Amino acid sequence: MIYSERSQQIIHFLKDLQKNICATLEEVDGKARFLNDEWNRPEGGGGLTRVIQNGNVYEKGGVNFSAVHGEIPAFLQREITENFPERGTAKNFFATGVSIVIHPQSPMVPIIHMNIRYFETDNGVYWFGGGIDLTPHYVVEEDAKYFHQKLKAVCDTTHPEFYDRFRKWCDDYFFIKHRNETRGVGGIFFDKLKEDNLLSFDDLLKFWKAVGETFAPAYAYLSHKNKDKAFTEKHKNWQLLRRGRYVEFNLIYDKGTKFGLETNGRVESILMSLPKTAGWEYNFIPENDSEEQKTLSLLKKGLNWV
Amino acid sequence: MIYSERSQQIIHFLKDLQKNICATLEEVDGKARFLNDEWNRPEGGGGLTRVIQNGNVYEKGGVNFSAVHGEIPAFLQREITENFPERGTAKNFFATGVSIVIHPQSPMVPIIHMNIRYFETDNGVYWFGGGIDLTPHYVVEEDAKYFHQKLKAVCDTTHPEFYDRFRKWCDDYFFIKHRNETRGVGGIFFDKLKEDNLLSFDDLLKFWKAVGETFAPAYAYLSHKNKDKAFTEKHKNWQLLRRGRYVEFNLIYDKGTKFGLETNGRVESILMSLPKTAGWEYNFIPENDSEEQKTLSLLKKGLNWV
Repeated sequence: MIYSERSQQIIHFLKDLQKNICATLEEVDGKARFLNDEWNRPEGGGGLTRVIQNGNVYEKGGVNFSAVHGEIPAFLQREITENFPERGTAKNFFATGVSIVIHPQSPMVPIIHMNIRYFETDNGVYWFGGGIDLTPHYVVEEDAKYFHQKLKAVCDTTHPEFYDRFRKWCDDYFFIKHRNETRGVGGIFFDKLKEDNLLSFDDLLKFWKAVGETFAPAYAYLSHKNKDKAFTEKHKNWQLLRRGRYVEFNLIYDKGTKFGLETNGRVESILMSLPKTAGWEYNFIPENDSEEQKTLSLLKKGLNWV
Repeated sequence: MIYSERSQQIIHFLKDLQKNICATLEEVDGKARFLNDEWNRPEGGGGLTRVIQNGNVYEKGGVNFSAVHGEIPAFLQREITENFPERGTAKNFFATGVSIVIHPQSPMVPIIHMNIRYFETDNGVYWFGGGIDLTPHYVVEEDAKYFHQKLKAVCDTTHPEFYDRFRKWCDDYFFIKHRNETRGVGGIFFDKLKEDNLLSFDDLLKFWKAVGETFAPAYAYLSHKNKDKAFTEKHKNWQLLRRGRYVEFNLIYDKGTKFGLETNGRVESILMSLPKTAGWEYNFIPENDSEEQKTLSLLKKGLNWV
């Protein structure tokens, strides 16, 4: 499959983005360096997995780039037909993206996730998807506000309704149903974004790029701001439990993880999202009026951080 | 719903079994005591969750009893119709069982899981299910052999083919597909066991009880045998990674966990199977000729330990 000019430009952008993000994170960390794992997908395409481990600031994280193509699997064709009934049946697909999860050392620095992805078929279907969301071990209200303001600013330059729609979508997506908790303080999430009467392909591409470019400065800021805060054993223990919830979400609900494992994807690249350590305690209930209790009370859908 | 005499006897047996198992484990541990959480299911029935934490030998584990009843959910009716097409539609179900997972402190002591369950409906359908399986952090061949011999002995008293059938069933069930690894060294697993020309209800009940009664002496033996073995940081680290695999299996594949979470079960009782801590390392590959590599080489289907 020869990639379209569009997709070649997008691949170029994503590779650059991955490089820049890794450079920023290495600079913030001051010690650890990303290792590089290039891989090929037997059915077509491949990727570059970049992993950081045991740093000063970041304990374990990955910045994945991938660009894969091949024959459309049946379940994907069904999804396409549902969304684009007028297009008929495609033969081949192309999908590319950058996907990031960072678990910091300190319980005072939030976990972060970002993903932007682009999809197209050989009969003219395409869409953009993506999002950024923040999972603090301890919710710091001004940090959540800062984060959401950045995302709102990116959304507002494209469409006045984007932020509100994508913020709600994020709350709904990153929801740990069996715990009745959101994974964190949310952010934005969107999928199957395509041109309409108001927004062209180029408008969407510009927006989507801007989402990707928001990651590095925002997370660098939040890392710097919180990395030297003092913490105790108690905070580390709570961090383990919050990471346990992160693991529950990713293994039970996350569609990307499920899709990857079911389609025989590269396991180590998919599960790089899991923390170095996580923990579970039977029926843990935080003390009244504790920081832990406050955090739990803020892991709810529909909070308006801006 | 008034329980049948059969099910009342079974409940009685299971409650006793739970008590005896907890007493044995407390004796082996020598320090920690099981805490008791009684709970009610709004739709009918309830259970007693017993949890041990931070012991000398056992770090975190649970011995759950439950006996629940109510209207049959649609997915369960489909399963019944598939297996007993002649029975038509039932209105109410009753399900009871004891379910155990124990995570030891020492990486030299194996993780263990046991579950026996009984199910019936108000139009005469019933079945037995259950199994025991062992997940050593380090496979000790003589322990695996001992464990399988005990299970084979229990099976052989009932039916000459049980052990072989149920051993294979166990390998297939406790398989971490995306890792191409079994969860541990297996054991036995069976489901939908019902009377036929050879075996009566009473024969099956006797077998099923014997499976439950195999647990305590076998695990007490394996705990005693291994609990004082020396270990280092390296062994603890490997234990974390093996526990990570246990978490992956339970959250991605285990039907009991999935069923529990989807039917709004008691989350803390369902997820008591998760370890106090677990870990993930990117692309961890054990050294050549190491104990870790040997263990990995033995986490395969179809090994005949007897």
